[in-house]
Amino acid sequence: MKEKKTVVLLSGGIDSSTVLAIAKSLGFELYALSFDYNQRHKTELESARMIASTLDVQKHLVIRFDLTDIGGSALTSQIKVPKHSNQERTVSSLSTIPVTYVPARNTIFLSFALSWAEVLEAEHIFIGANAIDYSGYPDCRPEYLKAFEDMANLATKASVEGTLKFKIHAPLISMKKSEIIRKGVELGLDYSLTWSCYDPQHRTVKGERVKVNRNKKGHTRPIPCGKCDSCIFRAKGFQEAGIRDPFI
Amino acid sequence: MKEKKTVVLLSGGIDSSTVLAIAKSLGFELYALSFDYNQRHKTELESARMIASTLDVQKHLVIRFDLTDIGGSALTSQIKVPKHSNQERTVSSLSTIPVTYVPARNTIFLSFALSWAEVLEAEHIFIGANAIDYSGYPDCRPEYLKAFEDMANLATKASVEGTLKFKIHAPLISMKKSEIIRKGVELGLDYSLTWSCYDPQHRTVKGERVKVNRNKKGHTRPIPCGKCDSCIFRAKGFQEAGIRDPFI
Repeated sequence: MKEKKTVVLLSGGIDSSTVLAIAKSLGFELYALSFDYNQRHKTELESARMIASTLDVQKHLVIRFDLTDIGGSALTSQIKVPKHSNQERTVSSLSTIPVTYVPARNTIFLSFALSWAEVLEAEHIFIGANAIDYSGYPDCRPEYLKAFEDMANLATKASVEGTLKFKIHAPLISMKKSEIIRKGVELGLDYSLTWSCYDPQHRTVKGERVKVNRNKKGHTRPIPCGKCDSCIFRAKGFQEAGIRDPFI
Repeated sequence: MKEKKTVVLLSGGIDSSTVLAIAKSLGFELYALSFDYNQRHKTELESARMIASTLDVQKHLVIRFDLTDIGGSALTSQIKVPKHSNQERTVSSLSTIPVTYVPARNTIFLSFALSWAEVLEAEHIFIGANAIDYSGYPDCRPEYLKAFEDMANLATKASVEGTLKFKIHAPLISMKKSEIIRKGVELGLDYSLTWSCYDPQHRTVKGERVKVNRNKKGHTRPIPCGKCDSCIFRAKGFQEAGIRDPFI
């Protein structure tokens, strides 16, 4: 029997961190993959590193490229991250895909995951895609993930030679954010290490931009804006789960 | 009617350069996309730049990432590029996929192309994939390209909202190398600017590695090894086309 190896896409947010904890609980040997794509909220990579470290991954690889050359998103260009005056972003408002959508981002991420999986001889790829309390991204839907899996099994030497059959796992796909958080807490995941905000805020002290210590373990980091989609979904998730967000 | 924009994957070799010339001849507005993935034959990027320049592309984007972190190929690791003692690499030897295969490379390349195409509002992506005189790569087959296209049309905001329907074009897919070369020559493509070799050779003069001028336009570049698959297919293609390789 093959070893149960998996590549896990890890952004450092709630969803991907929970997925890493789930893959660990299922007995997989973990290879975490993060991306520095010059995103506005690059601070999430510090969270990814801390989460990877606490969950005993075999290796944590960070691949760097610059999506600002391509642009087209509030996360990688000068387009402003939308803010909401309260935490009542409604389901109906999700029918339009927001400007924080990064063109084909999950396809790029999964492609690198596929490449690494083939080299590692890992048949499994975990992704924190979620189609319920999500931000309306097309590349988080089950039909997209199935199409990627079908393509992956035609794309590689390992799949063509029949030595590996790739499987994309999205265990959060039908879970509400509150259910995800409860699952992570049940698995002992420390959400104080995760980062969600799309638009990190910095304080200015005597004219210098400084990071502010917001973490009980003494890690310094910026302050979440509290008003972007990602902050709002986080807050709503913890509220509905009846759990206090340990980051705050 | 939408403008006829296309993203063209351009390595700087014979196939992708010919594809760029074909797309130009079809009246497309050209956006060329190349990758610096720390490949052994990075000199191909100089060729890509020259080709893009001579074919009047609107923009030539080079995206940088490091596939040596992932490895698994003679082109991105310490695995040696295989050499052949003559130009008789037979069709039967193509039944095995060679060590120059880079895991999921075309999937990674096409994913970035898809991202850029969405931002440009370009429905077309051209790739120099070839399933005849090719090197046995699984991600150059028609069934793979069709699966990528299907996935792409589920992956993006533009495809979900119905504003763009992506089409992957592989005009060389059923052409022999000699036919590709004849087509390029017919279109006025200057093959002296292209680079094919996987394992560029450098001369050492007084202890220093120097590039050698091999180009009639005075561009300096290394010397092709003449013995890797890519060199052999190039030589065979020109020979069968009855055309002298202008690079030599």
